[in-house]
Amino acid sequence: MSVFLETVLVEEAINRIQALAPKPGSELLPLESISGRVLSEDIMADIDIPGFDRSVVDGYAARSSDTTGAGESVPAMLRLTGRINMGEKAAGQSGAAGSCVYVPTGGEVPTGFDAVAMIEYCELIGDTVLVKRPLANGENIILCGEDFHAGEIVLKSGCRLGPRETGVLAAVGCDKVPVYRIPRIAILSTGNEIVPVTEVPTGSRVRDVNSYLCSSYVKGLGCEPILYGIVPDERVAFQEALDAALARCDAVLISGGSSKDERDMTASVIQERGAVLVHGIAIAPGKPTIIGQAGGIPVIGLPGHPASALIVLKVVVRHLLEKMTGDLSPGPALVKSVALENIPSMKGREEYVRVLVTDHGVTPLFGKSGLLNTLVRSNGLVRVPAGSEGVEEGDAVEVIQW
Amino acid sequence: MSVFLETVLVEEAINRIQALAPKPGSELLPLESISGRVLSEDIMADIDIPGFDRSVVDGYAARSSDTTGAGESVPAMLRLTGRINMGEKAAGQSGAAGSCVYVPTGGEVPTGFDAVAMIEYCELIGDTVLVKRPLANGENIILCGEDFHAGEIVLKSGCRLGPRETGVLAAVGCDKVPVYRIPRIAILSTGNEIVPVTEVPTGSRVRDVNSYLCSSYVKGLGCEPILYGIVPDERVAFQEALDAALARCDAVLISGGSSKDERDMTASVIQERGAVLVHGIAIAPGKPTIIGQAGGIPVIGLPGHPASALIVLKVVVRHLLEKMTGDLSPGPALVKSVALENIPSMKGREEYVRVLVTDHGVTPLFGKSGLLNTLVRSNGLVRVPAGSEGVEEGDAVEVIQW
Repeated sequence: MSVFLETVLVEEAINRIQALAPKPGSELLPLESISGRVLSEDIMADIDIPGFDRSVVDGYAARSSDTTGAGESVPAMLRLTGRINMGEKAAGQSGAAGSCVYVPTGGEVPTGFDAVAMIEYCELIGDTVLVKRPLANGENIILCGEDFHAGEIVLKSGCRLGPRETGVLAAVGCDKVPVYRIPRIAILSTGNEIVPVTEVPTGSRVRDVNSYLCSSYVKGLGCEPILYGIVPDERVAFQEALDAALARCDAVLISGGSSKDERDMTASVIQERGAVLVHGIAIAPGKPTIIGQAGGIPVIGLPGHPASALIVLKVVVRHLLEKMTGDLSPGPALVKSVALENIPSMKGREEYVRVLVTDHGVTPLFGKSGLLNTLVRSNGLVRVPAGSEGVEEGDAVEVIQW
Repeated sequence: MSVFLETVLVEEAINRIQALAPKPGSELLPLESISGRVLSEDIMADIDIPGFDRSVVDGYAARSSDTTGAGESVPAMLRLTGRINMGEKAAGQSGAAGSCVYVPTGGEVPTGFDAVAMIEYCELIGDTVLVKRPLANGENIILCGEDFHAGEIVLKSGCRLGPRETGVLAAVGCDKVPVYRIPRIAILSTGNEIVPVTEVPTGSRVRDVNSYLCSSYVKGLGCEPILYGIVPDERVAFQEALDAALARCDAVLISGGSSKDERDMTASVIQERGAVLVHGIAIAPGKPTIIGQAGGIPVIGLPGHPASALIVLKVVVRHLLEKMTGDLSPGPALVKSVALENIPSMKGREEYVRVLVTDHGVTPLFGKSGLLNTLVRSNGLVRVPAGSEGVEEGDAVEVIQW
């Protein structure tokens, strides 16, 4: 059985592939193990942060009203009545008019004082502090609860946990963190011409590039790749490999076969087990892409050429995988630049051209779409929209970075 | 003993910290385990890639000279003499004038033919193929060795291995990949005011944010963080913790203490074991940073405020850690944008202002430097150079993305 569908636009392909994403499960992990994971619940502050009026400098806590008009030649003169130690409660200290206390950075400002004079602008003579600048109300103090209030949501479900988010989780005492489980992505290579990397290919055979390229890409998005190796272009073997992957994984990526017959076999086996939703995308390179599902599990057929496969991963399949990780953060920002040469394109399909971006602009790296060397020499892709006949020298362009 | 040095400029601090980086060792890893690692040797192609003249389309291989002047109304008429199967040698096939053979995408083009007509522009009638467009010499063929020649260096030592590089390694048969070992980075938190994340802080204590923030940052750069927990601000305990870290790790990050006395203690203990090279950087926030070494191992004292610590990590310490991973690729590109508001700054120090970048431009998120909430709300930093008094509305700015 052969399954033919009309070629769809890239936007439509993205919508259809996102709709297939299964909802990720979640698990609790210790705070030290969450780097790069995605938060699966909103997190609230358990306490006010800071829990006290905190000095952000080493200096003298005082009443700002006592320093009105102070200057180098007419310093305010305040009586030093004590010293706050780190971590200690300032309760025993006076906040009385005309007085001051020494507070280290991070120390508590006693009640009654509303500012801290930096030590650099003060002079200590006996137990008198000369303050040589006027203080504003609140100067050099973070008030109790100013950073976060107890009960406030500090991080939303769906955010990816980098250093800043991890720091905030620590601050609010979240030592066991609810995160989405890592999706397991099966990777199959098909094609009778494909040989393992350990072999020297003979005849018109080629090594299995896509298993490793796809694996690295999937891992970079925070998924777990599971390699099923090279499956011969033989219907029963392919059915068995697909069924094994479906039983164990959350999505299946099949790369190749690169010829029409092989693609038709892939589509027909997917159709038997579920449905082929897209067979052909108006994108170059990458047209012979299949989007389908089997038993609710997304099954994607990628083009056989490694460069085409990577572009389809980056432009289309990324939206599926990101949704499966639960990541709601906006994708990577496009870099604005300018074309240093004309980039011709065919109307009616989105074209992704490998480019070298420098401070001066964007130079297209032309070359046949099957080359790996232009792929590694490029540092990004320029999209030429489906409705356009190309980009002219001097036109503004947006670059997707690798 | 107290160690005081002059405050140095950011550029000088970066030069000094890079000079401390120990040379990383290397190891061999299987191709499926190298995602995100750094290559430690140049890699050469073991064979020509492709190893044969390869068709990049499904179509008919032919002599381009046989199709001169061909068009819709006057097609070239070629005799179909055979069919190439994927992975098979084309040796038995004729490349004779006036003839053609069917070749699938990725199949070998027989000797004698110099182009492939896409099937979309051909019509098959009996055993005659009508070719409705003229072919150029080399059209739709990647020649033997056109992508990479045997013996050519395909990847250089020092490149970080993403999907593209991993694909190239597979293509050249590199199934065991030489990569740099992952540097082990000790992380210590100091300060009597610091309590574990599992505790509710009382008095003017705060939870240990920096251990987790630093750990996540270090991991994101491809290093292995090793947490030594909270060390009390007590000289002997601090010495013991530092010695334990030095015995086991390739670099040591000490965050806090935030007050001058604590910083002096940190500097003096480092000085006893090696040398303090920098004590104070002309950067805001982040001035109280220490760069030192003990027994050849870099020991870095970070500011106690989490936001300051992260900015120093991102602007200065990154250069040490990247060099330790062996990564020679250029750092992340700065995003060019425009200031939507004035950003005042003090002359004489580089200032890093948290900003929100949108398509319209950059809005500074003002607020005291100790706040976490502006840190998580921002998506980047704008650098105001040391020689400038600030950025004016409408000025071009470059953004470091988080």
